[in-house]
Amino acid sequence: MTAPSMETHNDFKNGVDARAAARQNNQTTPTSGVSPGYIQANMVVLPSRYAADFRTLCARNPVPCPLIAESASKGCFTALKSWIDGIKDEDIISEKCDLRRDIPRYMVYSDSKLVKSHCTEITSYWTDDHVAFLIGCSYSFETELAKADLSPRHVVLGRNVPMYRTSVRLCPAGVFTASTFVVSMRSYKKKDIDKVRKITRRFGVTHGEPIDWGWRAVERLGIRDLDMPEWGDMPLTMDGRAFGAAREYGDEGEDDEDEEVPMFWGCGVTPQEAVMRAGLEGVVMGHAPGHMLVLDLKDEDIVSG
Amino acid sequence: MTAPSMETHNDFKNGVDARAAARQNNQTTPTSGVSPGYIQANMVVLPSRYAADFRTLCARNPVPCPLIAESASKGCFTALKSWIDGIKDEDIISEKCDLRRDIPRYMVYSDSKLVKSHCTEITSYWTDDHVAFLIGCSYSFETELAKADLSPRHVVLGRNVPMYRTSVRLCPAGVFTASTFVVSMRSYKKKDIDKVRKITRRFGVTHGEPIDWGWRAVERLGIRDLDMPEWGDMPLTMDGRAFGAAREYGDEGEDDEDEEVPMFWGCGVTPQEAVMRAGLEGVVMGHAPGHMLVLDLKDEDIVSG
Repeated sequence: MTAPSMETHNDFKNGVDARAAARQNNQTTPTSGVSPGYIQANMVVLPSRYAADFRTLCARNPVPCPLIAESASKGCFTALKSWIDGIKDEDIISEKCDLRRDIPRYMVYSDSKLVKSHCTEITSYWTDDHVAFLIGCSYSFETELAKADLSPRHVVLGRNVPMYRTSVRLCPAGVFTASTFVVSMRSYKKKDIDKVRKITRRFGVTHGEPIDWGWRAVERLGIRDLDMPEWGDMPLTMDGRAFGAAREYGDEGEDDEDEEVPMFWGCGVTPQEAVMRAGLEGVVMGHAPGHMLVLDLKDEDIVSG
Repeated sequence: MTAPSMETHNDFKNGVDARAAARQNNQTTPTSGVSPGYIQANMVVLPSRYAADFRTLCARNPVPCPLIAESASKGCFTALKSWIDGIKDEDIISEKCDLRRDIPRYMVYSDSKLVKSHCTEITSYWTDDHVAFLIGCSYSFETELAKADLSPRHVVLGRNVPMYRTSVRLCPAGVFTASTFVVSMRSYKKKDIDKVRKITRRFGVTHGEPIDWGWRAVERLGIRDLDMPEWGDMPLTMDGRAFGAAREYGDEGEDDEDEEVPMFWGCGVTPQEAVMRAGLEGVVMGHAPGHMLVLDLKDEDIVSG
């Protein structure tokens, strides 16, 4: 059996299929577009002594760190405990999972240093003392935006969403101090801002509405360079120019409702950054960027209103 | 019956007594120290069309806006719906309440302009369309700090806690955009910071651990002047000097573990500020600063870990 190409991603009808493929190493590429309608999650795996502080970090910063579920018990990689109000444990993943193998690619850190990059499983690193945390991902609301004819540019162009470090601090929690928001960016016409806010607002479990928008937001958030995202691909205009630079030469003025401006959402890379900055001891693991855990939970299960 | 003086505040054994006294206008002074061990709440009353956005604002910003409960239904001032996981509606207020009279002093705004200040009831302003929201207050953890011999300075000196506007933005929600954190300040010796963080961390429903601390935090948070709080009293040293100015002339250096530094907590004035800044139409009401609703919920009911 050969690894499926980008084009066959939709062959995975649901979370069960996607996880089975990842487990058998038949799906080792980024999961954007895999099993549409099913929620994908970021994963952070920590030594148990950090679990309480991490839970508090998520509770205090639900926009960038929306906690969906964690290991059913210390060391457990086959079952989950739901953290979403009204969602049962088995709604998240309906059958036995293997969190050590069900994600296409993983990263492994030891004493806060990267020791393994993009490996296809973490069975040899997992111990009885590890606790896995699943965090919401903004892929969820992109389907809904597309339905409203508001497909994000990066999706239309087949690129990865641009993600940026900011200077906006998280509320600290125990060992997790001095961390900042990571944000994802999608650009929209000014006249569509309210519509985009409204659609994404309903996805509270997966970052909700944007945290800021407009050209001035770039400075407010302390983003270094809009055309040099720290993760993902450089944002482009429809005709392939760098989005930030294009603005400099083509500013159409404050009142042009057709002008496209950047909008910024809380991003699931935030908790990973927080973990890295905390200088934790022991073995910490996570998914490789863009390679998510596909759940059995569907978009419609978590949308409010 | 005469109004009780500051000294008789502790005569109200519990929330029922404190609310009855407020209802009969026998308790019209600030509630700091009233019914120790019982949780006090900030109240915000909004026209129902803003209720969903306000709920989202609280969900996205739980540290400064910890939502405890709201009106059981639109227009209801006699019963509550709990928003705290594991806490039943009747645990918050056990018997029939009257949210229009059970707080010692109220503020009333019409189309975002103050129309009534420090009135003792709001019965004539309340309509079938109003929804009340109760938000946690940091008085709760002060009892616990005192037990650990870490009484906040303002309590020792019989003053009000200093509160400040900051430039730290809330995550926006619907009509509530461009709002910022309001913080309360308590100063502690550097060597006590970890202890203070640990004690207050457990009070997740009432702001939890501080959001920042140390002298550099003043600038980071965009606080204008530590000795000129926007609400509450100026912070003092034990010998009665202005706390911020005393630092300028008595800096004991980075390594002095006995040096006292400011610590900042999310503050329940934040949602009121957010409401004011949103320029809402119609009649909005709230408690007067320092005059809280005393609940039947006890500190021990909401402490974690």
